[in-house]
Amino acid sequence: MTKRSVNIGLCGLGTVGQGVIELLAEGGDVLRTRVGADIALRHCATRTPKPEINTLGATESRDVFAVAQDPEVDVLVELIGGTTVAKDLVVAALEQGKHVVTANKALLAEHGETLFALAEAKGLTLRFEAAVAGGIPIIETVKSSLATNHVTSVAGIINGTGNFILTEMAAKGREFADVLEEAQALGYAEADPTFDVDGTDAAQKLVLLASLAFGQRIDVASVFKQGVDSVSPTDIDYARELGFCIKHLGIAKRQGSAIELRVHPTLIPKSKAIAQVDGVLNAVMINASGVGELLLVGPGAGSRPTASAVTADIAAIALSIAKGDQPSALNMGIPLAYFSTASIVDIDHVSSSWYLRLEAEDTPGAMAAITQCLSERDIGIASLIQKLDSPDVQRVPVVLLTDNASTAAIASAMKAIEALPSVGGQVTSLRVEYF
Amino acid sequence: MTKRSVNIGLCGLGTVGQGVIELLAEGGDVLRTRVGADIALRHCATRTPKPEINTLGATESRDVFAVAQDPEVDVLVELIGGTTVAKDLVVAALEQGKHVVTANKALLAEHGETLFALAEAKGLTLRFEAAVAGGIPIIETVKSSLATNHVTSVAGIINGTGNFILTEMAAKGREFADVLEEAQALGYAEADPTFDVDGTDAAQKLVLLASLAFGQRIDVASVFKQGVDSVSPTDIDYARELGFCIKHLGIAKRQGSAIELRVHPTLIPKSKAIAQVDGVLNAVMINASGVGELLLVGPGAGSRPTASAVTADIAAIALSIAKGDQPSALNMGIPLAYFSTASIVDIDHVSSSWYLRLEAEDTPGAMAAITQCLSERDIGIASLIQKLDSPDVQRVPVVLLTDNASTAAIASAMKAIEALPSVGGQVTSLRVEYF
Repeated sequence: MTKRSVNIGLCGLGTVGQGVIELLAEGGDVLRTRVGADIALRHCATRTPKPEINTLGATESRDVFAVAQDPEVDVLVELIGGTTVAKDLVVAALEQGKHVVTANKALLAEHGETLFALAEAKGLTLRFEAAVAGGIPIIETVKSSLATNHVTSVAGIINGTGNFILTEMAAKGREFADVLEEAQALGYAEADPTFDVDGTDAAQKLVLLASLAFGQRIDVASVFKQGVDSVSPTDIDYARELGFCIKHLGIAKRQGSAIELRVHPTLIPKSKAIAQVDGVLNAVMINASGVGELLLVGPGAGSRPTASAVTADIAAIALSIAKGDQPSALNMGIPLAYFSTASIVDIDHVSSSWYLRLEAEDTPGAMAAITQCLSERDIGIASLIQKLDSPDVQRVPVVLLTDNASTAAIASAMKAIEALPSVGGQVTSLRVEYF
Repeated sequence: MTKRSVNIGLCGLGTVGQGVIELLAEGGDVLRTRVGADIALRHCATRTPKPEINTLGATESRDVFAVAQDPEVDVLVELIGGTTVAKDLVVAALEQGKHVVTANKALLAEHGETLFALAEAKGLTLRFEAAVAGGIPIIETVKSSLATNHVTSVAGIINGTGNFILTEMAAKGREFADVLEEAQALGYAEADPTFDVDGTDAAQKLVLLASLAFGQRIDVASVFKQGVDSVSPTDIDYARELGFCIKHLGIAKRQGSAIELRVHPTLIPKSKAIAQVDGVLNAVMINASGVGELLLVGPGAGSRPTASAVTADIAAIALSIAKGDQPSALNMGIPLAYFSTASIVDIDHVSSSWYLRLEAEDTPGAMAAITQCLSERDIGIASLIQKLDSPDVQRVPVVLLTDNASTAAIASAMKAIEALPSVGGQVTSLRVEYF
């Protein structure tokens, strides 16, 4: 009952769609060998005509739903983005009995529950390797390679724009706004970069990854977010002096039966490999009961890297079809009936070490008052830098690294410190993770 | 036609075998959920009785071939090591129609051609995730996640003992022999550490990985090997001064239709994430046509990390069996009929940048003579350190980084430099890769 050709319907011919066509064309021979069948581009749809793109002889439509309705299409590839038409399109494809591959993290973070339930009910595959960390095979790693592990945490640089900005700030001492402008000019950041900057994009990917890793339903609104724009070149410099790099991380961690979910700038010791992941690269670190710590690094976006992940999903489905098997509908690793709803730890009760920066009078009394605000709340100090500026300056910068403390305890200590007469202005705080 | 229990036969109850039992026991519930069937430890065999190990109710044998003959066993797990009995055991298991999982890189590097051919002929799965880089899912990544890519190179820290030794030497300025002794005391190195030190272990893993990545048969004897014992603390220090770390890498690279295969100490720029991979950790970097560069980092050995990979292989087979499918016999990604025999580039024709260290008289004439030896062979100089020692020393250390040059050209230049009257003793050389 093997099938000689597996037919692909491609919706969306943007940069990723074009990459998919390239890789299918380049890899044709190898794919035929590997899969045991042709993978044929049968039908393409794009709202705006793109006559410059060679669609390998596929039928072309203006209406993406024509692809979902095409009886010849075995696998629909959703690359139109957004969460409205894309949702209707994926539903239509599944209703028509087609397997689906998507790179759309916003869609799955928002409507995953509905879509995965529909796919499972229909016995269909819904694959999404490209939706998290682009070309990095993190979904397959969690789903298959860590099948016998309990995952205890995932932490990742999962927004390339944010990492590019921090890398440039660190390398050249530039200000956030300045680098953001350059990132937009280079095409790394969207015209409206809000979702990259405020952590929304990273939160969507984190929820998808954590949901798979922990086997739980997670509401994307429950992720704590602190944007990459809260980092200044001054903090990058002090962090470096203390032996740390600052990265914008998405972190999901088990805490008993609940989980922590947070996206924020994080100080990481320079000696950790993830601290050396620069530019638009992404990286995901996993801690799991069997393997211990794994780190995967690679391109998190871009035409061909993202298409590499999309076409790997296509090839996996095609391999099953060509072999005469029904492709697996275990899209989230376990049947959805075994999914529970995650209990999320309130951010006030999330603990870590902290980096604090403030300005204080250069007197023993001032330092004593600051340390007392911390010790009264049982917060230990791990290291301290006090800059001895010129004598005509009234206040000097003080930088502290604390031991483990909850968000609530630190907030309370910061408020007390800010109220000290010997301290001027606000206290800046960033989380520190040693992993 | 689904099966309610998938039965495992485990041969070898050493550290990895015990890890496999642990993970199967701990993961029982999740595995049952994921796989849709029980994974039952049906039969264990070990030459030396180990009554202290709880084998979860399995039949116990002294003879590993009893496991291969057990009609109840679906999957035989080979963890006895070696290349003689292990080969007969895997052949026997395949002849009896059993799928096989092995962690034995020496076995597959030496007898892979026979064993994979037999497995394919019988339509059986022969999985080996744990054989390369322990807990890192590098086999699955190359086989599935890069299915549509052409791999152009792989380079990895694939011997944890060697990396531990280099890391200690770099951190503490210690000598090779001294650290090796500690590694043996800590159990990181074997009583006979020859294969870790001289690159044999890394060469076996490299051949397996390159064979899969390039779809070619490769003779393990064709790998060029330079041992980790050729690195001195002095070279580590100079490398650091130039902005590099020294790692012992296995490298496989396409050069036209042929491939380079080599295991040697390598200078890597500090800014590359792989340069920060320390201690017993392993790391594999892949360059491929679609994704670009991927880096995977994790534990390359140890009971539970290796068992994580072994049990992921078991789970993948069990998932197919439980679903009523025949597990895939595409053990090397493509049918063996499409495999070609690799043409290996002679090491003389392999090019890279080079690090050279020598002692020369501190005179303009001496430097001119050295640089002439290089320029006569079209070898450019990228950087140079000349140490100005105290005036009573006759010769001073000179350290050079060259541009790209073949092994043959460098060997010839080194010979010419060593013959200069202003140069004392031998020239030390190490390869440099920028990736």
